Amino acid sequence: MITRMSSLFLRTLREDPADAEVPSHKLLVRAGYVRRVAPGGYTWLPLGLRVFRNVERVVREEMDAMGAQEISFPALLPKEPYEATNRWTEYGPNLFRLKDRKGADYLLGPTHEELFTLTVKGEYASYKDYPVTLYQIQTKYRDEARPRAGILRGREFVMKDSYSFDLDDEGLSASYQAHRDTYIKIFDRLGLEYVICSATSGAMGGSASEEFLAVAPTGEDTFVRSTGSDYAANVEAVVTPAPPARPLEGLPAAQVHHTPGTPTIETLVDFLNKADLGRTFTAADTLKNVLLKTRQPGAGEWEVLAVGVPGDREVDQKRLEASLEPAEVALLDEADFAKHPYLVKGYIGPKALLANGVRYLVDPRVVTGTAWVTGADEAEHHVVDLVVGRDFTPDGTIEAAEVREGDPSPDGRGTLVAARGIEIGHIFQLGRKYADAFGLDALGADSKPIRITMGSYGIGVSRLVAVLAEQQHDASGLVWPREVSPYDLHVVVAGKDDALKQGGEDLAARLEAAGLSVLLDDRTASPGVKFKDAELIGVPTIVVVGRGLANGVVEVKDRRSGERVEVAVDEVVDHLTALVRG
Amino acid sequence: MITRMSSLFLRTLREDPADAEVPSHKLLVRAGYVRRVAPGGYTWLPLGLRVFRNVERVVREEMDAMGAQEISFPALLPKEPYEATNRWTEYGPNLFRLKDRKGADYLLGPTHEELFTLTVKGEYASYKDYPVTLYQIQTKYRDEARPRAGILRGREFVMKDSYSFDLDDEGLSASYQAHRDTYIKIFDRLGLEYVICSATSGAMGGSASEEFLAVAPTGEDTFVRSTGSDYAANVEAVVTPAPPARPLEGLPAAQVHHTPGTPTIETLVDFLNKADLGRTFTAADTLKNVLLKTRQPGAGEWEVLAVGVPGDREVDQKRLEASLEPAEVALLDEADFAKHPYLVKGYIGPKALLANGVRYLVDPRVVTGTAWVTGADEAEHHVVDLVVGRDFTPDGTIEAAEVREGDPSPDGRGTLVAARGIEIGHIFQLGRKYADAFGLDALGADSKPIRITMGSYGIGVSRLVAVLAEQQHDASGLVWPREVSPYDLHVVVAGKDDALKQGGEDLAARLEAAGLSVLLDDRTASPGVKFKDAELIGVPTIVVVGRGLANGVVEVKDRRSGERVEVAVDEVVDHLTALVRG
Repeated sequence: MITRMSSLFLRTLREDPADAEVPSHKLLVRAGYVRRVAPGGYTWLPLGLRVFRNVERVVREEMDAMGAQEISFPALLPKEPYEATNRWTEYGPNLFRLKDRKGADYLLGPTHEELFTLTVKGEYASYKDYPVTLYQIQTKYRDEARPRAGILRGREFVMKDSYSFDLDDEGLSASYQAHRDTYIKIFDRLGLEYVICSATSGAMGGSASEEFLAVAPTGEDTFVRSTGSDYAANVEAVVTPAPPARPLEGLPAAQVHHTPGTPTIETLVDFLNKADLGRTFTAADTLKNVLLKTRQPGAGEWEVLAVGVPGDREVDQKRLEASLEPAEVALLDEADFAKHPYLVKGYIGPKALLANGVRYLVDPRVVTGTAWVTGADEAEHHVVDLVVGRDFTPDGTIEAAEVREGDPSPDGRGTLVAARGIEIGHIFQLGRKYADAFGLDALGADSKPIRITMGSYGIGVSRLVAVLAEQQHDASGLVWPREVSPYDLHVVVAGKDDALKQGGEDLAARLEAAGLSVLLDDRTASPGVKFKDAELIGVPTIVVVGRGLANGVVEVKDRRSGERVEVAVDEVVDHLTALVRG
Repeated sequence: MITRMSSLFLRTLREDPADAEVPSHKLLVRAGYVRRVAPGGYTWLPLGLRVFRNVERVVREEMDAMGAQEISFPALLPKEPYEATNRWTEYGPNLFRLKDRKGADYLLGPTHEELFTLTVKGEYASYKDYPVTLYQIQTKYRDEARPRAGILRGREFVMKDSYSFDLDDEGLSASYQAHRDTYIKIFDRLGLEYVICSATSGAMGGSASEEFLAVAPTGEDTFVRSTGSDYAANVEAVVTPAPPARPLEGLPAAQVHHTPGTPTIETLVDFLNKADLGRTFTAADTLKNVLLKTRQPGAGEWEVLAVGVPGDREVDQKRLEASLEPAEVALLDEADFAKHPYLVKGYIGPKALLANGVRYLVDPRVVTGTAWVTGADEAEHHVVDLVVGRDFTPDGTIEAAEVREGDPSPDGRGTLVAARGIEIGHIFQLGRKYADAFGLDALGADSKPIRITMGSYGIGVSRLVAVLAEQQHDASGLVWPREVSPYDLHVVVAGKDDALKQGGEDLAARLEAAGLSVLLDDRTASPGVKFKDAELIGVPTIVVVGRGLANGVVEVKDRRSGERVEVAVDEVVDHLTALVRG
């Protein structure tokens, strides 16, 4: 069925919407793909819905191809399963909660772990039933504090969420890998530029977790990637390569210096360099000790923790928190310092920490045989050449120091650069958390119960429409990849006389008969207006039926490159079929 | 892709669920199509989702074919548009209401009239833009007082809702008719048995409104249909055929009789028949006058209304209310009677009503020239042979008397019988209510605004899955129409030896290659278990790969008729393709 722009429910806008900051938001509104209804709530207009359905189709085809089975849960869910896992509370203000007419508590599902687990428990009993992978493509709700960027971060959005259920860790690994492969197929088919980002550091012993980030300067997520390999990771997941330990022999002895007026690393380095110690110091030679307190979940007491990092680096709060998870972490306050008089603010050194039983973790660069300038546990005094493994031995290492551009890549190839991205997928070895909460067991061959282990996998389906627009546009408008374009072809009748109109109709009919989908601009508007709209709408191939028609040719224009070729009317269906089917 | 029952996420149940009353609910749960999550909230399991998608596809194809354009609104909606139309309040407890983290009011959309109207207003301005018809297939929410019958009446459900926008009444009529034709195509394709029911009586001058009711003894809606035509109507919409007026000449004069001990129609008739008046009376000869009060919306004062119906019929409250809509209606209470002393309870007659200016409407059967026994406005007195048009003239007629089986059909063909049905579609000329609320105007050719007129059209998409199950099942299970069946074919391997298994796999692969969808029962279960599940699941054609395979034949069984034929393996793909493609 030909879609005619004369009757299509579409009005393009000349101006960017006032509330739009990122290109995808501006263009999807201007080109008539979406309209705002409420903060984080958008209507799909006909063109937008077609792109969305195409994305959804690609996701569904690949999920089906990997053997995942589609089901569909309600969005309106009773409180009880979410109370059982404590998520009813944990979600805090991000959860939309409501009551029904009888006063029973409900929520709008943000994710469906509980329901998937309960459903598998309801149907399956024996080890022979496993493994199984289920998925849904469904509307989800999160009451974001700051919904933004149009459909990029909405409060109502569509996700593909899937869960694998396996009898053992090997099974989970295989399910995880199958999802990883499928995600690569999906994002490749959609023509996205993306990286696969380690989301947790293997060093901390966490389960595997990777994020698929679409590279976009407007992205909310930051990550680092290597200049010399395809390594990419969230900053939290970067594992600092530790240098080899050095021999202790022949190192100069530690010496305490009176260092008045050195409250900062900068003043300290300055002081040392003026003190005629026979060498030049930099901030990287100093060891800065940051005092914190941590509390394990459910524990009443805070524990003091000291973290030592090279003085040229700040502690990165997010890396610190990720390393200490699930414990809470906070800076020591004045009252805490008062309780620990051996902590001399500004001059804290390893000796007092270790002597007083404070847990002391250092940056991985602080290896045996390295010598540091650090606090001497006495006001206005520092110690120089304090050597690890000789003068003190920390309790372990911690990933807490900031990651900087130019740092060596953890895989040993190239150096790190910072980049921004948008999360489009997440795969995660969830383990037994939900199976434990609901007692999801399979009866084993030996009649003993086997606790099931789960993987959790998500793709932001509606968000992908915006991500594609964000990555693929130019100054004139959108440029869709063929796989998701609302139409295969945009046929523009460039003129008002009847022969052209009829030529456009005939061509559109022949193209539809050949199985191609056609958007036909049959409006009475000027060719200039039509061309502008075609550029804005972004169908990858534009066919212009214009003056050439009298000579038996039409113009085929590539939206992305701007390249134009004249093609004989007799050959144009074959030409375009080849182009589209590529 | 072949679906194998050995890995399909499906466990059939031997027992009916405890909460199920109607066949569709029992069978859809037992056959593993749906699972309950909450009152009125259900999960689609893989088979159910496939049927649902097939129904959705048929609806979408026919909506697209009629030129309606698909869009999609959020389900989570801000309060303001619904306050503008007063529906925020009017919906009462049926609306799911909630607040976001900032305390703003939201609702879960029960229908989207407001949003459709606002969206058209946002895009369209000129008369040249019209007409347009938009639709969505989307999840809706209603907090039903008594969710029941599984997915037949849920609180979360999927509807196709569409709206037509026209410049004038002729346009609206055409849009309405186009929807009516499309609904007939949809419901015919789905193989439903249904009637098109007048929902409002044309006699009352209302806008056209028709309901599509699937005939089902378990249906919640009652309606009447003719034994002699395809006439069907809600009881509220039945127009009573009025007999022709009779000549007044020669009719006996009215006579007042002392009728002690006749508080009811029955005692009155009994009294008259014993009074030797020269003829036999029945309740149908009496005229019962019911005293009511009505109040127009927004009016402060109640108005007294008398309704006269033949004594053999009760006043049907729903018909009465539908006739008086939008006015409220109530019975007169003792205080009201006290204010109107001319009303002699039990003996009220037309004379006192008309003499005192009470509005008096009668049943359409009460035509000029008919003679009635009725109250004489004096205790224990009735008047006999009170003739319409001679002794009194009512203010008009009203459809208030009950409709009974055996009543003549309003179209003059056959008599009425009562039936039950399930509403599957509703088409309705909405008019300018929402255009008025939001000021939806088109700028006319003369630069004057034209107020747009709308039609509203709904189909219960998820409900249709249950309706089909309700209409098409037998004692063994479901029997799907081909158009919506989860698979084209159910191939059962009836035995465990490897040759049979391989035969089943080969056949399934050949059928899939021919474009047919196959559910392959490759489980190790006994043939008896497999046959039982196949009957329960209800794929219309079951192919049994069994002992005959050694002789080069398989058995093709028709699920509905139970008929079996043996078909040569070499020919079975052609045979089945022809069967499925019909």
